[in-house]
Amino acid sequence: MKRLTALDLGFIYLEKRNQPLHVAYLNLLTPPADAPDDFVQKLVERLRSYAAPLPPFNQRLESSLGAAYWVEDPEFDIEQHVIHLSLPRPGRIRDLLSMVSRMHASHLDRAYPLWRTYIIEGVEGGRIATYSKVHHAVADGIAGTRLTLRSMSGDPHDILPPPWAVPPQGRRERQANLLTAPVTGVARLASRFRHAFDSVPTVARELRQSMREAKQKHPDFVSGNAAPPSILNRGISASRRYAAQSYSLPRAKAAGKVLGGTVNDMVLAMCSHALRRYLSDLNALPDKPLIAGVPMSTRRDRSETGNQIGFMLVNLGTHLDDPLERLNCIVASVEHNKQRFIKMKAGEILGYGATLMAPGLLNMLTNPKGGRLAFNLVISHVPGPRSNLYWMGCRVDGMYPVSVVVDGMALNISLTSLEDRIDFGVIACRRTLPHVQRVLDYLGEGLDELEALAARST
Amino acid sequence: MKRLTALDLGFIYLEKRNQPLHVAYLNLLTPPADAPDDFVQKLVERLRSYAAPLPPFNQRLESSLGAAYWVEDPEFDIEQHVIHLSLPRPGRIRDLLSMVSRMHASHLDRAYPLWRTYIIEGVEGGRIATYSKVHHAVADGIAGTRLTLRSMSGDPHDILPPPWAVPPQGRRERQANLLTAPVTGVARLASRFRHAFDSVPTVARELRQSMREAKQKHPDFVSGNAAPPSILNRGISASRRYAAQSYSLPRAKAAGKVLGGTVNDMVLAMCSHALRRYLSDLNALPDKPLIAGVPMSTRRDRSETGNQIGFMLVNLGTHLDDPLERLNCIVASVEHNKQRFIKMKAGEILGYGATLMAPGLLNMLTNPKGGRLAFNLVISHVPGPRSNLYWMGCRVDGMYPVSVVVDGMALNISLTSLEDRIDFGVIACRRTLPHVQRVLDYLGEGLDELEALAARST
Repeated sequence: MKRLTALDLGFIYLEKRNQPLHVAYLNLLTPPADAPDDFVQKLVERLRSYAAPLPPFNQRLESSLGAAYWVEDPEFDIEQHVIHLSLPRPGRIRDLLSMVSRMHASHLDRAYPLWRTYIIEGVEGGRIATYSKVHHAVADGIAGTRLTLRSMSGDPHDILPPPWAVPPQGRRERQANLLTAPVTGVARLASRFRHAFDSVPTVARELRQSMREAKQKHPDFVSGNAAPPSILNRGISASRRYAAQSYSLPRAKAAGKVLGGTVNDMVLAMCSHALRRYLSDLNALPDKPLIAGVPMSTRRDRSETGNQIGFMLVNLGTHLDDPLERLNCIVASVEHNKQRFIKMKAGEILGYGATLMAPGLLNMLTNPKGGRLAFNLVISHVPGPRSNLYWMGCRVDGMYPVSVVVDGMALNISLTSLEDRIDFGVIACRRTLPHVQRVLDYLGEGLDELEALAARST
Repeated sequence: MKRLTALDLGFIYLEKRNQPLHVAYLNLLTPPADAPDDFVQKLVERLRSYAAPLPPFNQRLESSLGAAYWVEDPEFDIEQHVIHLSLPRPGRIRDLLSMVSRMHASHLDRAYPLWRTYIIEGVEGGRIATYSKVHHAVADGIAGTRLTLRSMSGDPHDILPPPWAVPPQGRRERQANLLTAPVTGVARLASRFRHAFDSVPTVARELRQSMREAKQKHPDFVSGNAAPPSILNRGISASRRYAAQSYSLPRAKAAGKVLGGTVNDMVLAMCSHALRRYLSDLNALPDKPLIAGVPMSTRRDRSETGNQIGFMLVNLGTHLDDPLERLNCIVASVEHNKQRFIKMKAGEILGYGATLMAPGLLNMLTNPKGGRLAFNLVISHVPGPRSNLYWMGCRVDGMYPVSVVVDGMALNISLTSLEDRIDFGVIACRRTLPHVQRVLDYLGEGLDELEALAARST
């Protein structure tokens, strides 16, 4: 029996009928070439054989005398948590994404431990998929990444226990082997996440200060009016539209090298182009630039373990027609943020979890009178390992985050960069933001545009 | 724009995270023998081609100035309402029932018209299934039956529009053709259902009076203490377990003929045996008999259209070991109810909808001090047509109701008797009532027991 932290409790109370607060991963997998016909069925049986999970996966919520606790579930039932599904033929990716949209819209039952994994067979090209969700009160996005990576290996013959069955000791070792340095830093920070809630006022003060400075020194970076009103910032329905696609990491890297930007700058420029195009289609592009809230690892020095998580407000330059001007605006905005962060102490740039996942709360704190927004959407980039990954003998073809949208923040773009791919997951309120799958094409256009810019520069 | 009635609004307000208030049907279908490989895909396409539904299927909920209205959805999107799914191989019925359990636990999104139909391929034996749900504020269980039957035909070559696209004029005609007399009466009554909420206090008074009389005259029928506390009457989780099976209508009829009971008496005796066995397994059978709330058509005279809906409190005799004594207890209890209903005016025995679907409300009204229950569970029997039915060219092999459970009423048994089958649908809170699928076996045992009794009597 363990009392919930204030932050975890917040994720329980902030949850609403139209606003479930779980995070998820959609993984796309290719079974081994010699997989028998009943491969998926055996896989499901194997997963279900891990029927005695370790904390927190065996704990459910219980309230008593006005407080909430995590309590071990004495009747843990693996069939409630590991579900076997199939796509109708021909199993198109768009059908898979529709299925994920529906599953992500559905609440976890609080009478049970707050996680569930779906194994989905019948994806075109002989592939399978998994969709795994966990309530945000149990694990945040970064812990979610760790959970997912924890059960993967670089060796196709290495069959590891699923996340809910990895003993704590083994967890740390495997993680150290698998993750590249930035994520090790992230993983370490995630353990501090639980205490981050208290630092939200600090973060809010920093953000206010940042906005004030930006207005004085760099009027183009983050406008003193903060984020403009936009259709991204309306109330949401209970339905979701999920879109996911992989893009070439080497292409983004190569363009960045020529243009003097990081992979993250390229990702933000792709998002900027995509948002500009998407909102223009709907005749809803604000005159002022959109502001993205971007959680980011900011390296203080050259040590492998010296990374920190910051939360940047990035001017996406969506008001600028010229792609080079737009990129320069983004790079300058990121640079401005980084310089601030370097001056800040580690403790001051925490509060990451709360700011990332409860943007409404952050908006409230940065602007107590309401009305104005600190940012229009969250763009979250979690770097992963560069080596090939396998899960239960299957090649991992894609590992797409499925994040959270909330009232006033109807779009979230999350991505992992791993192996040679950037795996984008775009989640939106289906009703507020029509045809959000178009963003995928526009992200691709954005990458083309960056390559064209790079070609002109050489 | 149409304001919600008090009753409909009640179904909106009574809905909770763990207590969605939609009703559904699971239909099991055999496609035509010459169905091509893409039969289901074409079927889904055909259903989606009916993309401009008629009221109430094109209306969504809107609140304004404290009142709630049904408003035409200007952006109606058929893809939100017609979903194509597939079962993983081998497509066992138990997998289908698990899938229905999960789907029934999931809320409809109030930003859209409150209905959804799933077409599920890959059921073993080359079959398919549909699961169609509609919010109780839009249609009650009886209207749900009408909606389902409305799109069916006795002719396999007769392809009718789906329920949401049948014009009002055609609706009435088709109904008259298809439905047997009792259901025609039911259908007529259902139109009064909307106004039934006001008569709930009358019904409550009648029930109180009925309980008082029963105590004086027939102490064994409905105990003055009303329904005993039982595990059926606990709070519920948000998860469901659904179990469904068909039983032979001719067998039940034949046993009833010998034993002097109606099909409905036989159904109640089957339920009584099943509940007795199920609760005994869990060491949770109350010493006093369970009381079922049974909505029922009670014929006043011999006219085809003179049927009325009553709500009976039936003593299920679950405390009695001897099957004949148990049956006699049920038959006497039903007879007692019928005699009361004959003395009552039509208006007095309305309020059916509210009593059936909001048992907590009824319990509150019959016993304002709380604590005591008027009944332990609802057993609902809707008779259907005796002829074979086809839907979109597919033979209808089963038409199983999926009803509602609420806090304090964790089990519901609903059934349709049609063609030569009795199609039982048992829905329960998954957490409160473990292994409720066992009820199916025990229902079968109950029928065996009745046949054995009949054999002894001849």
